[in-house]
Amino acid sequence: MAEATARDAGRDARSLRLEALRNAIEQAHLDGLLLTGLANIRYLTGFSGTSALLFVSQRDTLFLTDFRYETQAAEEVGELAQVHIEAQSLWSRLWALLPTLSGLEVLGFESAHIEHRDFQRLLEAGTRWQWRPTVDLVETLREQKDAGELALIRRAADAACDALEATVPQLHAGMSELAVAGVLERCLREAGSEGFPFPTIVASGERSALPHARSSSRELRRGDFLLLDFGAEVSGYCSDITRTFVIGRASDEQREIYEIVREANRLAASSVRAGMKGRDADALARDYIERCGHGPLFGHSLGHGIGLEVHEAPRLARTAEGVLPLDSVVTIEPGIYRPGWGGVRVEDDVHLAARGPQLLTRFPRELIELG
Amino acid sequence: MAEATARDAGRDARSLRLEALRNAIEQAHLDGLLLTGLANIRYLTGFSGTSALLFVSQRDTLFLTDFRYETQAAEEVGELAQVHIEAQSLWSRLWALLPTLSGLEVLGFESAHIEHRDFQRLLEAGTRWQWRPTVDLVETLREQKDAGELALIRRAADAACDALEATVPQLHAGMSELAVAGVLERCLREAGSEGFPFPTIVASGERSALPHARSSSRELRRGDFLLLDFGAEVSGYCSDITRTFVIGRASDEQREIYEIVREANRLAASSVRAGMKGRDADALARDYIERCGHGPLFGHSLGHGIGLEVHEAPRLARTAEGVLPLDSVVTIEPGIYRPGWGGVRVEDDVHLAARGPQLLTRFPRELIELG
Repeated sequence: MAEATARDAGRDARSLRLEALRNAIEQAHLDGLLLTGLANIRYLTGFSGTSALLFVSQRDTLFLTDFRYETQAAEEVGELAQVHIEAQSLWSRLWALLPTLSGLEVLGFESAHIEHRDFQRLLEAGTRWQWRPTVDLVETLREQKDAGELALIRRAADAACDALEATVPQLHAGMSELAVAGVLERCLREAGSEGFPFPTIVASGERSALPHARSSSRELRRGDFLLLDFGAEVSGYCSDITRTFVIGRASDEQREIYEIVREANRLAASSVRAGMKGRDADALARDYIERCGHGPLFGHSLGHGIGLEVHEAPRLARTAEGVLPLDSVVTIEPGIYRPGWGGVRVEDDVHLAARGPQLLTRFPRELIELG
Repeated sequence: MAEATARDAGRDARSLRLEALRNAIEQAHLDGLLLTGLANIRYLTGFSGTSALLFVSQRDTLFLTDFRYETQAAEEVGELAQVHIEAQSLWSRLWALLPTLSGLEVLGFESAHIEHRDFQRLLEAGTRWQWRPTVDLVETLREQKDAGELALIRRAADAACDALEATVPQLHAGMSELAVAGVLERCLREAGSEGFPFPTIVASGERSALPHARSSSRELRRGDFLLLDFGAEVSGYCSDITRTFVIGRASDEQREIYEIVREANRLAASSVRAGMKGRDADALARDYIERCGHGPLFGHSLGHGIGLEVHEAPRLARTAEGVLPLDSVVTIEPGIYRPGWGGVRVEDDVHLAARGPQLLTRFPRELIELG
């Protein structure tokens, strides 16, 4: 019963999203939109597979997938769209179906989610329509999360924090980074995570200064920073959290850098607001790190939206002129990286609610010395 | 010392690959090729990051990445290319660099690895060159593995088998599929896997009939099939293995279906040869399953190449006219799926050597009853 109710609620939400997209299509002076981006298709239909095309016009919603997903498409998409299961090529089926719909002249396609090879198909097999590139029509809708989405992101944040709590007591000097990843990922699964939104980053010692390290065979040593950056996934929705620890006792210098990053995180996570420009949010943390004299060592942007993708709109960055929407969920992840010495990053997920920013990742931010 | 030697050997192999690509560029009547596919860029340069452009002409090799990868690009790419680190847009840097190279008129781009949005850049900022779409120029080179690549795939296959051996004794009725994934993925990390080439599939009971299930909260019950499909990654190279178990005692019907799939796997894995067409390789297993009366329940193709990507050329499928190259590595993965009842798949990785097919995944194929 509970499952059926949740599915109905999901379908209601998706009907609203399709309606919002139809408005956007009309405002863009298009008769219809061909969707090829899988996260956008999942947002609109609930389909979680890896092969699909979706076509939306004022009158019709066509969903195409291949035979492997027949059962799954029926369960996930249901009555929201006219579902077509195809044994050979989704594109051939599309070219067979589109001419049966009337009133279509100017059609949009997703410029950021179609490879040149498939774009050529529009010019070759789709000559009876005029094709116009669109950007971010669905992504813009996705920025503002509804109650169901917020609940799932909250569960993903809880799963990540539960996993980290279960992991920390198992960490000690002598473990390899890969072994740390193994413990953490197992705890993520035990906490109910359906997947890993991005490759787990376990970066120790001088490797913690590489903002995009993955995990290596390096063994943890006393005195190392240990940076863990990872996420959980619940019904397709992601969380993304970073904590930095010290193996053994922290040096004064490590503690000093850590406290600057922690304070930058606190300042931004408590002051960020819906309605603010992305660049002003970025400045909340960056200005503080600059005042502390470490500006050049904070080389990346402050954060990004999360949802069905672990990196989505809006951006919190020096160059982000866009406004942070109400009910968006964003990361706040200041860092200081000193090449050859090490780095610290403290990252939380924050819901920009009408009543102010709501921290979703509740794992403590105080410096923890391990082992 | 050993590490430096391995790196030198990798650089030598990559120099040869770049030379082979230069020949392919010349044969395609191009003056140069812009590469945007990350697996292709990794194959040619060793770069393992997620942001790069590569330009190759007879005279020049330009590699562009962003500031996050400065250290990594120096280590991985080294002297193989002229390395440019960019703080803002890789594309702007490309448009600044390309005009400094002489003799370039007709340039290729990778049609399957460039989104329409980026393709537009070629038409807008790149008007001084003629741009031609190319398909599979590098993918074709990647089909035939060199000794270094074969050694890495073998290590990835060993890691997957080691992990499965360590996992099997820990499995029992009552565990959730997610918990099984957690145990297996931790064992993969302990075995040295740097990542997960694709989302781990743990499918039990009737879910084993879904060829593309991931892992759910469903709990294992006595009498269930338990299908595990997963891989390991070593220095970017993948393995891909599937085994199907029974929780408790197998029924006669389960055993019958299992033995048909196992025999189909054995027939294909022992008879597949370099020089065979992909469709003839597919038939090695499919004909047997059809003779046993289960043809319609084997809905997918027999296999695919593996390497830097878990799905790459060549294909082993009913419609695959291409020939399997010497020293390619392919999966052999027949299956029988009965909706609502369950499914069996047995998948191995096979190196198509001159002396015949070499099984890389050594985990037993006999039916194992667990718990």
